[in-house]
Amino acid sequence: MQHTTSKFEFRLLAQSGAARRGEILTPRGVIRTPAFMPVGTTATVKALYTDQVKAAGADIILGNTYHLMLRPGAERIHRLGGLHSFMRWEGPILTDSGGFQVMSLATIRKITEAGAEFSSHIDGARHMLSPERSIEIQCLLGSDIQMQFDECIELPAERSEVERAMQLSLRWAERSKSAFEEARDNGLAGDGQALFAIVQGGTDAALRRVSAEALVDMDFPGYAIGGLAVGEGHKLMLSTLEATLPFLPKAKPRYLMGVGTPLDLIEAVARGVDMFDCVMPTRNGRHGLAFTWNGRVNLRNARHAEDTSPLDPESSCPAARDYSRAYLHHLVKSGEYLGAMLISWANTWFYQELMQAMRDAISEGRFDEWAAETKARLGETPSKGTA
Amino acid sequence: MQHTTSKFEFRLLAQSGAARRGEILTPRGVIRTPAFMPVGTTATVKALYTDQVKAAGADIILGNTYHLMLRPGAERIHRLGGLHSFMRWEGPILTDSGGFQVMSLATIRKITEAGAEFSSHIDGARHMLSPERSIEIQCLLGSDIQMQFDECIELPAERSEVERAMQLSLRWAERSKSAFEEARDNGLAGDGQALFAIVQGGTDAALRRVSAEALVDMDFPGYAIGGLAVGEGHKLMLSTLEATLPFLPKAKPRYLMGVGTPLDLIEAVARGVDMFDCVMPTRNGRHGLAFTWNGRVNLRNARHAEDTSPLDPESSCPAARDYSRAYLHHLVKSGEYLGAMLISWANTWFYQELMQAMRDAISEGRFDEWAAETKARLGETPSKGTA
Ligand SMILES: [Zn+2]
Ligand SMILES: [Zn+2]
Repeated sequence: MQHTTSKFEFRLLAQSGAARRGEILTPRGVIRTPAFMPVGTTATVKALYTDQVKAAGADIILGNTYHLMLRPGAERIHRLGGLHSFMRWEGPILTDSGGFQVMSLATIRKITEAGAEFSSHIDGARHMLSPERSIEIQCLLGSDIQMQFDECIELPAERSEVERAMQLSLRWAERSKSAFEEARDNGLAGDGQALFAIVQGGTDAALRRVSAEALVDMDFPGYAIGGLAVGEGHKLMLSTLEATLPFLPKAKPRYLMGVGTPLDLIEAVARGVDMFDCVMPTRNGRHGLAFTWNGRVNLRNARHAEDTSPLDPESSCPAARDYSRAYLHHLVKSGEYLGAMLISWANTWFYQELMQAMRDAISEGRFDEWAAETKARLGETPSKGTA
Repeated sequence: MQHTTSKFEFRLLAQSGAARRGEILTPRGVIRTPAFMPVGTTATVKALYTDQVKAAGADIILGNTYHLMLRPGAERIHRLGGLHSFMRWEGPILTDSGGFQVMSLATIRKITEAGAEFSSHIDGARHMLSPERSIEIQCLLGSDIQMQFDECIELPAERSEVERAMQLSLRWAERSKSAFEEARDNGLAGDGQALFAIVQGGTDAALRRVSAEALVDMDFPGYAIGGLAVGEGHKLMLSTLEATLPFLPKAKPRYLMGVGTPLDLIEAVARGVDMFDCVMPTRNGRHGLAFTWNGRVNLRNARHAEDTSPLDPESSCPAARDYSRAYLHHLVKSGEYLGAMLISWANTWFYQELMQAMRDAISEGRFDEWAAETKARLGETPSKGTA
């Protein structure tokens, strides 16, 4: 563990166009930005040892408040010494507020000014999440970067409904902030921990601006852009980003939640985003889809059945370098654990290599050039959106 | 890879009562006996990297002819360079003949003097296995220790049926041997590879003796005891072993197929068995059941939910030493890959530690004393049998 600071601090180190290279200092170590956070939903990055996640180059991982509050429970994790020691990850952890997953996974009973009542998708048990309870849970977990509680609505939606949810999220931001400050006063959170706000407003530029400006007035140490990557498509996501980022302070980190494909990451970094999380590397890994520097490889495809070449002979990741595509194909077709383990590993490694390449290109002042080359090389096509 | 020899060779190093310590020399390395072979059914020891299997102390693993002939196919593995390089295991590999699994997994169409016609459990496709085809497949895989093709019948069965199958297996042993010798003449198998015979005869002592003596007359480099651990129970398994082992040559390795629990292994070694294989460590690992030096631990049990102690603080296995039972419990309850990965790892390691402890106790001439202490410590109860 690198104890570089006792406080939470963001430093901008270089810029190339709108793309930013920086670092977030925390008592648990430095987070190099732009950063991609592997998702450790239920206190495990699926099918990977934490040593592999670290060696892949990840400085920070994400934990899900919703999943962890249901199983094994926040109070239980607290009694066991906190999420870091529970899952054996010594670096920083960001936790979401639970808001997004309450809306997408649980059966909602009622959303009121107070918060969200819902039934667990595991056993149907009734639970309540509010800004105060969300912060309490995130403190019990020992989260280094906590997220405000917000309401995420499904898109498309009426403008009035988008605005209502955005305004409610602003009031919840205030309450989250008060709860976090109280936790600090009570010693439940330290100076090295931070609470980020979440800009909402759907794909409506005017609402995004209202949300961003109100949150900036409240002065958070970091800002997330929420409610995107929910089916609106690549183009609308980028135009919404462009309508939002100018209203966020340059000196604070910006986190685009739940994103995304390699192309999404490159385009978002080009516009000034600093942090990302997504289940894509591990979920695709479990389904036999690998990301490489020469594009995606669907290992279910019969054309790999006798291909003795590895996923990427030049990779420093053992999973990408040391196993034949024929073997990976066989493992995927056979539904073997090792298939999911190896491809999730290769994908997690690739995503971190992609972030490192972006950081390098920014330092060298040639991000746009690098991005053009890399997009051509990866051959990724933008998602059209389902919303 | 240890290139200790160009030939297949067995050496007895020490004896303690009837328990034997020895080593099998092969061009791919030394197999320390008594040896437990982790099962790599479909070219992977489930949920483990081969590096972990090796580091656990395994000198040799087992591959399944039946599974591999169906997927990815023996000719395909041969074209890809053989099973060792396909799955990245450099040490010796023993393959079974396919006989047992044809009978237990496939839909049998017909068993004749020629062999077994069956339909694949994967896609229903028709296949034929004969002694000649089984040896051909095992040579294509590059197996170091091959097994004769045999007929395994379900127990209990009429004595006449047990005898018929045993006699057929003897004729198939002759044909397997001829096929293997022909493969050697044709350069498809080398001097460092060996073919073992399989003693059959159910739980009938007289039939076991007939089978053993006939096979010893044929002069194989090793002998397996087949058709046990199929539900007959611990006691009947041991009495059958006692009725069989005296008729096998002392200078050849003896392999008890598909066995077993820690107690089975200790009792069989006490009677002079040198080799074992079983899916128990990995299958139980996937189901949350751990083997430790203080007995079995069912990690699904709620009593582990807040237990911060590891499976075994004195183990040198990271999975047993570095993770809390509470975390393992959580992973198992959540159905996470990492739960299966960690417990399979711990179990595979424990089985290898058990074999090493047996080898040490034999060298020190105190196997019986060690066995009594260890059985008390493990607290294993003998299986009653279902047949
Ligand atoms: Zn995502
Ligand atoms: Zn078994």
